[in-house]
Amino acid sequence: MKRIESTKNERVKQWKKLSTKKERDKTGLFLIEGFHLVEEAIKSGVHIEQLIVAEHAIIPASWNVAHIPMTIVTNDVMKTISDTETPQGIAAVCKQLHWNVDDVQTALFIDAVQDPGNVGTIIRTADAAGIDAVVVGEGSADIYNAKVIRATQGSLFHFPVIKEDIGQWIARFQNRHIPIYGTSLQHGVDYRSVAPSSSFALIVGNEGSGVNEQWLKQTTTNLYVPIYGKAESLNVAIATGILLYHLQKK
Amino acid sequence: MKRIESTKNERVKQWKKLSTKKERDKTGLFLIEGFHLVEEAIKSGVHIEQLIVAEHAIIPASWNVAHIPMTIVTNDVMKTISDTETPQGIAAVCKQLHWNVDDVQTALFIDAVQDPGNVGTIIRTADAAGIDAVVVGEGSADIYNAKVIRATQGSLFHFPVIKEDIGQWIARFQNRHIPIYGTSLQHGVDYRSVAPSSSFALIVGNEGSGVNEQWLKQTTTNLYVPIYGKAESLNVAIATGILLYHLQKK
Repeated sequence: MKRIESTKNERVKQWKKLSTKKERDKTGLFLIEGFHLVEEAIKSGVHIEQLIVAEHAIIPASWNVAHIPMTIVTNDVMKTISDTETPQGIAAVCKQLHWNVDDVQTALFIDAVQDPGNVGTIIRTADAAGIDAVVVGEGSADIYNAKVIRATQGSLFHFPVIKEDIGQWIARFQNRHIPIYGTSLQHGVDYRSVAPSSSFALIVGNEGSGVNEQWLKQTTTNLYVPIYGKAESLNVAIATGILLYHLQKK
Repeated sequence: MKRIESTKNERVKQWKKLSTKKERDKTGLFLIEGFHLVEEAIKSGVHIEQLIVAEHAIIPASWNVAHIPMTIVTNDVMKTISDTETPQGIAAVCKQLHWNVDDVQTALFIDAVQDPGNVGTIIRTADAAGIDAVVVGEGSADIYNAKVIRATQGSLFHFPVIKEDIGQWIARFQNRHIPIYGTSLQHGVDYRSVAPSSSFALIVGNEGSGVNEQWLKQTTTNLYVPIYGKAESLNVAIATGILLYHLQKK
């Protein structure tokens, strides 16, 4: 087992760089940290290239990770690569995931949602609602950002989340005659006027400007969640939860 | 108009102390910051004791705040009292709010929700859903915490949010024969088995342990939101949104 004590070690620098989208895109890797997330990754069969363990940390025997390369590091090294203030003492370098998405009947398209916490919570919610796949379009927080992964609570590992062009997916759903619902406070209909169904796509959009007008023009119908009180709007993740649980037929 | 340049000024120390719950409880005051929140506070008629304005900041004439004491401060002073990394240059010391809640027909009880972002988003969601009042019980993030206020986006100023004992409110609703719904993944029924109504209370609980067993025993029925995918659970604010929009009859 390797052991690294210096925060200036080349491999430590490499791991630290994975906090940037650029490096993640280049290498096809991403870094996760904390016991819950690493456990979820192992259980879900995510390809882990490297386990990084602080010297005081204890790995549960049930993880069965003898086959995964492991490096022991000092607490200082762990702090250097960690995104959190008090790291739990375990991290892992993982390969980005690829999914077969030929038979997607229900999908959520995320258009330019910028807050990592919102993107992560939306992914977790879509997973819970039993949606087949999430497509994350341009302008959204990167799905391999540490804050996004933390907010998904592991959904990213066992559920198809795809970085692709939303326009292509709209065309694909149109060709298959599956309804596509946009969301628009200005030009929509009350979501309860649409009946639950086992095939649909829903598009949710940016915290400030909503879904891109270009996509709204190509939808079957655009929906809104009515505001009854004095609040100006709902948080986008909350609106997504209300819409998905109404739209899906289970 | 007063002007303060030193971060060691006694009044600056006083304002900074308002970041602690202890000081807020003692003084009955709280501090807000940012243009949107201060504007919402003014529009809602919140009693503002003091406007604190950074030297470069411009106050919109439409605010009509000539009657409110104003202090100009340096950017350094603003940074000292601010909770954010890049303060917008405006803050206000406000009096805590008191509400008349004699005729509450629909209410949300928040039991020990710890994350300030969750508490704030739940309050904003209850406001949007047209619920009459929110009761925040012991063990929850303080409603005058800066992060909670930010996440409410101003709902706190125009909508009854009350720090009181949940047990008292349960008794009050029981006496009025209004149904009380708890939330429980283990011992609940699917939320869709309950019909929408114009009088009810909903209790949501701690991120890890859920609603206190003590309250769950006193409810009319306990509900859960089904999980169809592999996610272990829904975020508590998301579950609240789904439940409130289902339960309320509008």
